[in-house]
Amino acid sequence: MIKAAIIGATGYTGITLMDILLKHKDVEIKYITSKSYAGEKFSQIYPKFESITDLVCIEENINEISKNVDVIFMALPHGIASGKINNDILKRTKVIDLGADFRLKDKNTYETWYQVEHKTPELLNDSVYGLCELNREKIKEAKLIANPGCYTTASILALSPLVKHQLIETSSIIIDAKSGISGAGRSLNIQNLYCEANETIKAYKVGSHRHTVEIEQELSILNHNNKINLTFTPHLTPMNRGILATCYSKAKNQVKYEELINLYKTFYKNEFFIRIKNSANDVETKFVTNSNFVDIGISYDKRTNNIIVTSAIDNLIKGASGQAVQNMNIMFNLDESEGLK
Amino acid sequence: MIKAAIIGATGYTGITLMDILLKHKDVEIKYITSKSYAGEKFSQIYPKFESITDLVCIEENINEISKNVDVIFMALPHGIASGKINNDILKRTKVIDLGADFRLKDKNTYETWYQVEHKTPELLNDSVYGLCELNREKIKEAKLIANPGCYTTASILALSPLVKHQLIETSSIIIDAKSGISGAGRSLNIQNLYCEANETIKAYKVGSHRHTVEIEQELSILNHNNKINLTFTPHLTPMNRGILATCYSKAKNQVKYEELINLYKTFYKNEFFIRIKNSANDVETKFVTNSNFVDIGISYDKRTNNIIVTSAIDNLIKGASGQAVQNMNIMFNLDESEGLK
Amino acid sequence: MIKAAIIGATGYTGITLMDILLKHKDVEIKYITSKSYAGEKFSQIYPKFESITDLVCIEENINEISKNVDVIFMALPHGIASGKINNDILKRTKVIDLGADFRLKDKNTYETWYQVEHKTPELLNDSVYGLCELNREKIKEAKLIANPGCYTTASILALSPLVKHQLIETSSIIIDAKSGISGAGRSLNIQNLYCEANETIKAYKVGSHRHTVEIEQELSILNHNNKINLTFTPHLTPMNRGILATCYSKAKNQVKYEELINLYKTFYKNEFFIRIKNSANDVETKFVTNSNFVDIGISYDKRTNNIIVTSAIDNLIKGASGQAVQNMNIMFNLDESEGLK
Amino acid sequence: MIKAAIIGATGYTGITLMDILLKHKDVEIKYITSKSYAGEKFSQIYPKFESITDLVCIEENINEISKNVDVIFMALPHGIASGKINNDILKRTKVIDLGADFRLKDKNTYETWYQVEHKTPELLNDSVYGLCELNREKIKEAKLIANPGCYTTASILALSPLVKHQLIETSSIIIDAKSGISGAGRSLNIQNLYCEANETIKAYKVGSHRHTVEIEQELSILNHNNKINLTFTPHLTPMNRGILATCYSKAKNQVKYEELINLYKTFYKNEFFIRIKNSANDVETKFVTNSNFVDIGISYDKRTNNIIVTSAIDNLIKGASGQAVQNMNIMFNLDESEGLK
Repeated sequence: MIKAAIIGATGYTGITLMDILLKHKDVEIKYITSKSYAGEKFSQIYPKFESITDLVCIEENINEISKNVDVIFMALPHGIASGKINNDILKRTKVIDLGADFRLKDKNTYETWYQVEHKTPELLNDSVYGLCELNREKIKEAKLIANPGCYTTASILALSPLVKHQLIETSSIIIDAKSGISGAGRSLNIQNLYCEANETIKAYKVGSHRHTVEIEQELSILNHNNKINLTFTPHLTPMNRGILATCYSKAKNQVKYEELINLYKTFYKNEFFIRIKNSANDVETKFVTNSNFVDIGISYDKRTNNIIVTSAIDNLIKGASGQAVQNMNIMFNLDESEGLK
Repeated sequence: MIKAAIIGATGYTGITLMDILLKHKDVEIKYITSKSYAGEKFSQIYPKFESITDLVCIEENINEISKNVDVIFMALPHGIASGKINNDILKRTKVIDLGADFRLKDKNTYETWYQVEHKTPELLNDSVYGLCELNREKIKEAKLIANPGCYTTASILALSPLVKHQLIETSSIIIDAKSGISGAGRSLNIQNLYCEANETIKAYKVGSHRHTVEIEQELSILNHNNKINLTFTPHLTPMNRGILATCYSKAKNQVKYEELINLYKTFYKNEFFIRIKNSANDVETKFVTNSNFVDIGISYDKRTNNIIVTSAIDNLIKGASGQAVQNMNIMFNLDESEGLK
Repeated sequence: MIKAAIIGATGYTGITLMDILLKHKDVEIKYITSKSYAGEKFSQIYPKFESITDLVCIEENINEISKNVDVIFMALPHGIASGKINNDILKRTKVIDLGADFRLKDKNTYETWYQVEHKTPELLNDSVYGLCELNREKIKEAKLIANPGCYTTASILALSPLVKHQLIETSSIIIDAKSGISGAGRSLNIQNLYCEANETIKAYKVGSHRHTVEIEQELSILNHNNKINLTFTPHLTPMNRGILATCYSKAKNQVKYEELINLYKTFYKNEFFIRIKNSANDVETKFVTNSNFVDIGISYDKRTNNIIVTSAIDNLIKGASGQAVQNMNIMFNLDESEGLK
Repeated sequence: MIKAAIIGATGYTGITLMDILLKHKDVEIKYITSKSYAGEKFSQIYPKFESITDLVCIEENINEISKNVDVIFMALPHGIASGKINNDILKRTKVIDLGADFRLKDKNTYETWYQVEHKTPELLNDSVYGLCELNREKIKEAKLIANPGCYTTASILALSPLVKHQLIETSSIIIDAKSGISGAGRSLNIQNLYCEANETIKAYKVGSHRHTVEIEQELSILNHNNKINLTFTPHLTPMNRGILATCYSKAKNQVKYEELINLYKTFYKNEFFIRIKNSANDVETKFVTNSNFVDIGISYDKRTNNIIVTSAIDNLIKGASGQAVQNMNIMFNLDESEGLK
């Protein structure tokens, strides 16, 4: 049995980790921590877990915890994990960080976009960006995983085949993404109140969302290390869960739809969690709700030479906790879909 | 008092017309027709109208009706109005058609995109595209108004200043639009069932939605009659009402944000129903719900030279019945906002 | 023109007052106050009011305000208004309190259920319980109106005819009420977050909700001053607005359905805002959304001798701000529906 | 491996059966039938099943199917199963009917409330009402299970301890139940359209819902075979899934809250799927969504001597397909929670 700890178990990603790991046949959750709820039974905070687990939240003490577990999941707001992880801990245990601190390879980019000092830049080189389908080999050897953001997972997987095969003008890339409200977390914020978020849709952080640089970093690598700048626009959608990314890019030359579909099917042919659809119309967030699947649909608008790719994920699963467990499965050499079916 | 008739009063746009016209101080509704509910009191079909109106739906007989009213609102599925309107009727009364039959000036384009024969192409030349803010002078003289589509209203108003002033590469225009479910009408369709449409979002008719050509037609006129082709992607969003159009285009040259804002404020400076916001983030469908306002917000992503304009309307009001009444007000020389405040 | 002030204009009832009063032809809003937003334009806090009002929130100073207005609407949390209103103010201006402080005639009952001291019990006798349909004559003469609670309005109006005519065992009364989330106000509370309140329903404050004693007080008066105790259970329903009260009581004797319907139609025959429906099935909150109507439907279950009455209101209108304006109309001898149609 | 068939796999209960059985380690689904979709892959009708199952819907031929499977789940509209099941089939295979045809023991009651002839009344005696917690011993031996209705499951389990121990005036029982829209099935019906069912709540079939007699039948048995008549009122709530039953009854004598809680904890002490909560406030449908749990909370209103019990289930799981699988587990002597955790 793999012994696991969850640091920050009571946010939405923490709960989802609990959901998945409690059913995972090879994992035993040893510790769950919570700043706000230390000392309380998890099932009292979240009654749906009654009769399922008796775990009690404790104060976070990552040094002690790291001595007794095989893997630590960090589900904390950005800027905190980078002050807690260090090489001593990484010698003892593997760490999967669901926050943003180790995703950007460049310290300056991180500090510019997150407006916080990075406290352990020396770890950035060794951390692995945990987008399973693209970085599987590195993940196998990793000690520290930077689990990707939700929008970024949907966006990168949607665009990778086009970028890698240099079919598109990269300067034309536009990602228009729509997220359920759980993407905003469980924080007390007027705009997250039911009556404020219900029956309305809006764009936010236009031109300034932090996932922009994360997407650019990974797509630039796929682009044979030529820097890509793109426009990313997130929207708040009145539903609990789910992300739909509608991705636009101009084909360099006229393409045939059949070639596009074949490209995607070939690119992802061994990927259980990626399902290629015949059209951008065939993708809908409800088809992936409560699952680790990524649905990707491809359309080609020959009138404008635009390729339109839609991709859908459950933001809390493939966009966070599901992918974290998928990473763990890879790191521990388990069936990649264990606990995720 | 202006005597009015509503042909097709029991769909969502018909109900909204009732809502507005019953409060309009210069209008008396003389007739309402319904194929499915002829003979029934409107307030029995829609109980919210009890104690408000005693009108009874009758069978449609537009020839007779046209002899007794000053204006007819047509709220029918496409392909029907073109078979009912003719010059005799237009000699007797003004007609505002909320359907699509008279929006496209080119018969072939209409027949290609709507897959139905146009029965009165001779009327296309005289009909006026009723986007009030752009065509006010023509509307004043019109006998037959083609009331714009919901997506098109939001999209054209968002992009007009940029196109008219030739600030953008028109080949780069992408419109990513999100609509509430009422946009699909009150028809019995599996995908419109509550449990199918709730808690999910999806794109539909990618690259093939009929509003594409309507937007192109009007923007091409503004573009000094140079043809524009663009990509338009509609999405179904789990809410009753509202459209948000997120419009992307590449600036021809680097621009300054202040210039953009000034351009929009100047372009729409006399328009009561258009409210210019300082950022694409400041637009949200709930701010325009139940009103005839169009909120437009402008952002500039200098990293990519993209201009991002969001616009929001209530699809049933400014996107249909509200604009129809605004057109009527213009045609009858009333205060343009009468009944719409 | 009636000069009005709103104390606490930025909560949900305050906004709704703004909505209604800005359209009221006989009212000019002179002052709006807000603790959190003093100094800010109302339309900046709530962008839907842009182009509609330029009013700016000020600090509350009720003494000064009372010298310059004809009516003050108080939209404050309970326990505050009783410390602000006094006889000096009431000599200068009429006051309509949308809070709970003057609803309960008995100081001890108030202090027991609200757990706060009542600071001006001397005003309780002169205040009038502003349930318009039942207390119209007293409202005409009142200086201080205690505007009823939302649940209480729906419940009392549903049961009054039965109680007044002594048709039911009053000890059997059960009111099972369902409210939209706006009933909880705009406060930052985990349970009001979108993802917490969406896709779920629950009872709360079972056996202990404060509206219980308010309903009992008024029904007891109608019951020829014989004290009624009843069970009231509120539920949180995933929708923005609306209350449905399902009211159960045992008929003293077998009754005929026709007698019941006639009783209700007669009891409310002159009431514009009350619409009697033929069955408890015919009442639905959406029929009264955005209106001041109360829909009441009556069914009789002869198998069990239970009378089931459903009533629906918009909690923010007839359940709060609409009824407040209706009260004002009565007090100032205006058409009772002015501003409410 | 248990070989199973699902007759009517494409309705909401059919899909939920697929969900559960595909993960059940002891079951192999051999056949799924569908009238509307025969010949189509299940994963094409419901894309969320892509990569999960390749099953294809076939035409229903229950006689042939019964020769090759161990258990048949019937998920059909009422009135159909009674014409398909017969003793020959029951000799070959076990049948779990999720419809209503075998729930009511009295043919006349069935025909009065369902307005359809019962075609195999001879089977009524042998069929077992599959409310697992109450009838486990009979279920073990059964050939034909009448799987309970959704409202009835929630209601009977909430009230059984009180009835069985004769603590309440049974003539005072009132059940006010709230269901998500999936309870209405996937049928094309105006009232189930998104824009009709969203943002509203209503009672329906007041005094006449068919589950009334089903609840009465089972509670009467628990009441030592003394007939109970009760009032049951279902409500449509704007959410996909979940039922909350708020159950009221008058205590015969004053009781102590502690006694009530102990009664419930004792009554259900060995029931994994029943979780007793300290208060009627502690029950919420979201805590049981996607699970087979029944949450029951108890409050006592000593002011009126009413006992208020709330119970929540997922209508598609414990209210239908989950309970069906729980029944199967009992019949085949498996761990009762297999496939349901």
